[in-house]
Amino acid sequence: MSYNELFDKAEEAFKTYSKTTAAEKAKFLRAIATEVEQLGEKLLETASQESNLPLARLTGERGRTTGQLRLFASLLEEGTWVEATIDTALPDRTPLPRPDLRRMLIPLGPVVVFGASNFPLAFSTAGGDTASALAAGCTVVYKEHPGHPKTSQMVAKAIEKALQACELPEGVFQHVSGGIEAGQDLVKHPKAKAIAFTGSYKGGRAIFDLACQREQPIPVYAEMGSINPVFVLPAKAGSDAPKLAEQVAQSVLLGVGQFCTCPGLVFFPESETAESFLQTLSNKLAEAPAVAMLNDRICSNYHESLKHLAGRESVDRIITPDEDVLTAGAALAKTNVRQWVQDKALQEEIFGPYTLIVTYTSLEELELAASELQGQLTCTVWGEAEELAKAADLVAIIRDKCGRLLFEGVPTGVEVSYAMTHGGPFPATTDSRSTSVGTYAIKRFARPVTYQAAPQVLLPEELKDENSLHIWRTVNGQLTQESL
Amino acid sequence: MSYNELFDKAEEAFKTYSKTTAAEKAKFLRAIATEVEQLGEKLLETASQESNLPLARLTGERGRTTGQLRLFASLLEEGTWVEATIDTALPDRTPLPRPDLRRMLIPLGPVVVFGASNFPLAFSTAGGDTASALAAGCTVVYKEHPGHPKTSQMVAKAIEKALQACELPEGVFQHVSGGIEAGQDLVKHPKAKAIAFTGSYKGGRAIFDLACQREQPIPVYAEMGSINPVFVLPAKAGSDAPKLAEQVAQSVLLGVGQFCTCPGLVFFPESETAESFLQTLSNKLAEAPAVAMLNDRICSNYHESLKHLAGRESVDRIITPDEDVLTAGAALAKTNVRQWVQDKALQEEIFGPYTLIVTYTSLEELELAASELQGQLTCTVWGEAEELAKAADLVAIIRDKCGRLLFEGVPTGVEVSYAMTHGGPFPATTDSRSTSVGTYAIKRFARPVTYQAAPQVLLPEELKDENSLHIWRTVNGQLTQESL
Repeated sequence: MSYNELFDKAEEAFKTYSKTTAAEKAKFLRAIATEVEQLGEKLLETASQESNLPLARLTGERGRTTGQLRLFASLLEEGTWVEATIDTALPDRTPLPRPDLRRMLIPLGPVVVFGASNFPLAFSTAGGDTASALAAGCTVVYKEHPGHPKTSQMVAKAIEKALQACELPEGVFQHVSGGIEAGQDLVKHPKAKAIAFTGSYKGGRAIFDLACQREQPIPVYAEMGSINPVFVLPAKAGSDAPKLAEQVAQSVLLGVGQFCTCPGLVFFPESETAESFLQTLSNKLAEAPAVAMLNDRICSNYHESLKHLAGRESVDRIITPDEDVLTAGAALAKTNVRQWVQDKALQEEIFGPYTLIVTYTSLEELELAASELQGQLTCTVWGEAEELAKAADLVAIIRDKCGRLLFEGVPTGVEVSYAMTHGGPFPATTDSRSTSVGTYAIKRFARPVTYQAAPQVLLPEELKDENSLHIWRTVNGQLTQESL
Repeated sequence: MSYNELFDKAEEAFKTYSKTTAAEKAKFLRAIATEVEQLGEKLLETASQESNLPLARLTGERGRTTGQLRLFASLLEEGTWVEATIDTALPDRTPLPRPDLRRMLIPLGPVVVFGASNFPLAFSTAGGDTASALAAGCTVVYKEHPGHPKTSQMVAKAIEKALQACELPEGVFQHVSGGIEAGQDLVKHPKAKAIAFTGSYKGGRAIFDLACQREQPIPVYAEMGSINPVFVLPAKAGSDAPKLAEQVAQSVLLGVGQFCTCPGLVFFPESETAESFLQTLSNKLAEAPAVAMLNDRICSNYHESLKHLAGRESVDRIITPDEDVLTAGAALAKTNVRQWVQDKALQEEIFGPYTLIVTYTSLEELELAASELQGQLTCTVWGEAEELAKAADLVAIIRDKCGRLLFEGVPTGVEVSYAMTHGGPFPATTDSRSTSVGTYAIKRFARPVTYQAAPQVLLPEELKDENSLHIWRTVNGQLTQESL
């Protein structure tokens, strides 16, 4: 099928799908979750073979995948996400009467979703981008990631079964294989209305540039990773350095350092405990066995990046894994704030189990470093209660750099929930106004439309006088579940 | 002052301003409204001299300007717009506990606002873009429109007075003069975080392209106008053609056709009443005196566009005003759907008091025309109740083309309210997810951020356990005004 036929089909299906009720869409999302589960162990084994990720991790990832499909189903059933807003008519207002105005979010149309190498289930075929786009009422043209084609096709079949079970048109979800050129053609297609992508900066930026150059530009939600700095404040550093080191090590090693939220940068005070922190951290990282990454290209990029580090005077390499092999051992390097600020290259993400410790000597120095940061998915501040209470200035600087700001735990835990933001200022993503994880992700695929003086029969259920869906609506500026 | 100094100041002021409470920002917006009013008749006279718009119109526009400043103040005082969302911790959840997560919208940083020629007050210095950006907590670098520099500087002084009265830093609002190059430099400045613009397609697209090419791309909200089609259904056309013609004429002539929502295209059934519709419309338009437009360049562009029409076989010109003068008389042309669909040039906006009547012979033909439309700010459907009830397919097509869908009245009335959308798919705007009029406009200048396991003392008021602002918050998926 040519891409023109593909998008014609997606557009035609959109006419039907965008008219389905929220309940129908919710049923469809739940059906996908069930069909994915029914693929059984075979799915996990296939994904493991293709991605080198262990079964336990993939079992968790499947749970996240089906969980987020069901979370979006609940969101649709609850229904308030459309931001229904009604200004009632004021026929007697002077000098001019006010007409009846009713606004809600509607879906954008057919959208393109790219699979991610590092989450063959949760950020791929039936992953968060697909789930949120389908929840919004968009139809999806899905571009399989070449790293896990069999996994992708299995899940695509599951979605097709769900479509059949729900008597929805085939064009609601279409699965496409191919390389970079295929991806470019999808981005350039005039009928594509938005793009979702998770991957490298290079890939995300290229897609963004292409989408901007279209005759009709479209939104691009590219999540391009980040180095996820951790700021350890002095009292905290003094209290339990070995435990902090263990936490960092665990987070760095998670999924062979292939999480977008891997903490690749830790600011630690120059102090007595710095040595014990580094010692524990380097022990923990050195203990970890060298293992296969998602694919050989990613692994050789990892080694390549580490070799570049060796050439930089600004850093000391503390742990250097074997570099000409097809497995990745953990890596650790160290510098101080003054050198880090000078050498912009140290802000580039090294995708894999690597972290850089940056020592600082004062809060002023730490604030300087914070203000030099590029956009991040996450920033983490570890401090004792008293020092945190005094760190408002640092926190204000960091908040403007990231999508999520942690004060406990490690950034690699990404919750799929209402309040999650997995996004952040460029270059973490191409659109800081969005998240790719959690219910708020649905907003990426919708836009507002206002009905003026519309007859009841032409209004969507969400905007009719009778609030049959019992959603929360803003009527003349006040939230209410009442009918008009 | 260099642009670097200017943006340093804007960034420095952002640190203070983004920390002010909602109540403080509301007070500031109200102070601007008061200061604008205190400029008195002198402001209206100056604006009239510079824009050729009559005092009565400018009086109304001033009311809209101060009204929208106060509306945003109320929105801030109510406070729910930040979409505060809290997922409470689930420490006992298995296999992993859930951390406490709290999301809200925060301001983007310093933004650039461009003045509009056609609204020297309501879309310029203290207009909708400035008001919504300041309400969001952004600082504003405002680029004056060269069409009304004196008006702009008067209003800028009023804003400066309001800043002083509220003891806010000067850098919260800065006023810049200059031409195209100055505008480009502002768009390219690394510290600018978003752009708002109202004007021509050419200008908006150029700004969008520049912003995309930045090392760090930023959102561009360019409202570039549209032709605002009106679809007259057969029974409605049969019932009161002369009255409909009068409505169209009035809307076309409003502000010498210089409203972004001027109805430049009317689909009318080929019928017995088509003649009387055209007759009344042409009489009304011909009666209107030729008057000065906003400036001579706009006027000569108008005449130029009309001359191009004369060269097209696809249209008949019915009213052709004097074309080599510095005033604009109204213009009217006519074609049919088949010719209109063929000739894409007829979808280009002619900025001024002009409209094109397109006759159709069947609902299928009308749906075909609708599906050929580019993105629009507004679409209007006029029909009798019975035929409207059967027009769901047409309405579905049109809804996907516009930001506002009217069933009564004319598109030129743009209400500043909660439910308004003044936006629409490209090329009406560069970002269909936004509106530049109404309270929803504030969302353009904000992005979500999530706090994870944050101590109460570091949380913004909106996210603390105690809901001291009494805003509506989504707690574990449920809207509530309760404290935790």
